[in-house]
Amino acid sequence: MKELEQRILRDGQDLGNGILKVDSFVNHQVDAALMDLCGQEFARRFSTLGATKVLTAEISGIAPALTTALHLGLPVVYARKNKPITMPDQVYLTLAPSHTKGRMVELIISPEYLANGEKVLIIDDFLASGATSLGLIRLAEAAGAKVVGVGALIEKVFEGGRAALEPLGLPVESLASIASMKKGKIVFSSQ
Amino acid sequence: MKELEQRILRDGQDLGNGILKVDSFVNHQVDAALMDLCGQEFARRFSTLGATKVLTAEISGIAPALTTALHLGLPVVYARKNKPITMPDQVYLTLAPSHTKGRMVELIISPEYLANGEKVLIIDDFLASGATSLGLIRLAEAAGAKVVGVGALIEKVFEGGRAALEPLGLPVESLASIASMKKGKIVFSSQ
Repeated sequence: MKELEQRILRDGQDLGNGILKVDSFVNHQVDAALMDLCGQEFARRFSTLGATKVLTAEISGIAPALTTALHLGLPVVYARKNKPITMPDQVYLTLAPSHTKGRMVELIISPEYLANGEKVLIIDDFLASGATSLGLIRLAEAAGAKVVGVGALIEKVFEGGRAALEPLGLPVESLASIASMKKGKIVFSSQ
Repeated sequence: MKELEQRILRDGQDLGNGILKVDSFVNHQVDAALMDLCGQEFARRFSTLGATKVLTAEISGIAPALTTALHLGLPVVYARKNKPITMPDQVYLTLAPSHTKGRMVELIISPEYLANGEKVLIIDDFLASGATSLGLIRLAEAAGAKVVGVGALIEKVFEGGRAALEPLGLPVESLASIASMKKGKIVFSSQ
């Protein structure tokens, strides 16, 4: 998506080690209008899958997942990384490595909000190694739900997430696909 | 706001000790359409304040803050509770007690995204003791920004947040104001 690619070129910062800082429009400060555009685009690309729920992981996935859900007319569930006191004792829980935290984090979903037979669309900010998406897919499967697609604002192709998801045969869409990021130079797959 | 009050009566759960569980439409599963309506209503109520940025705290504040920002045409900044590796070493940081975690949490904002002279509208899911709002106000003031209003989806009047904010002379708006919550019976101020 042109608008997102241009914004990454303008405001994204390559911090090295594959870390792309997009804190000024995705991860700390959020450009609400851009997120809405991205949600609209995800809704368009995934419109025919019959999804019944959008699923993401807190924290940075919430904004794009919410705008996607809004345009699809669906609720969104975000997996928690800490179990709040309002959650029942029996939960779906899995572990996934966090790229920006350098450790494993828990992904927790209450069985109250993910039911048997649901069709789940996963939306996240980044598709890097695919570990978070795979974690969310495990949670959905544990609930008896079916994942019907995976969308990410920004894909880092060189970290292999798409390849990791490929055996599942799911449609995978990213709005900005970064082929390489070297010495601060960002090259998109579309180039 | 009628829609939110009705939803609280239908799906909210009084867990005791002043804890209102709204995990099915605000805090874990999010009703995107309802959040959009709430954002529209905040935008209407705060339209004349000249806000330049919406400010909230992760995690549960993000959804209503984002939809409010969308309807006001503004960016939103969410204070982080853990410093990510993408954030610079010099940050604005304050401590605030977390109601649902039972301990103090950090609220952290990068100086990159909160500038001297900005007019900040604070939006959060709950107004309880007012401690989170007061924390965000301290961060805004540290940055030289001016808070112009505080909005919460759900106010628990009996926890005194409005009274705590009153000395600041700010407009404080909540979309559902709960006067009392006893033995599972929720009474709104509007009743």
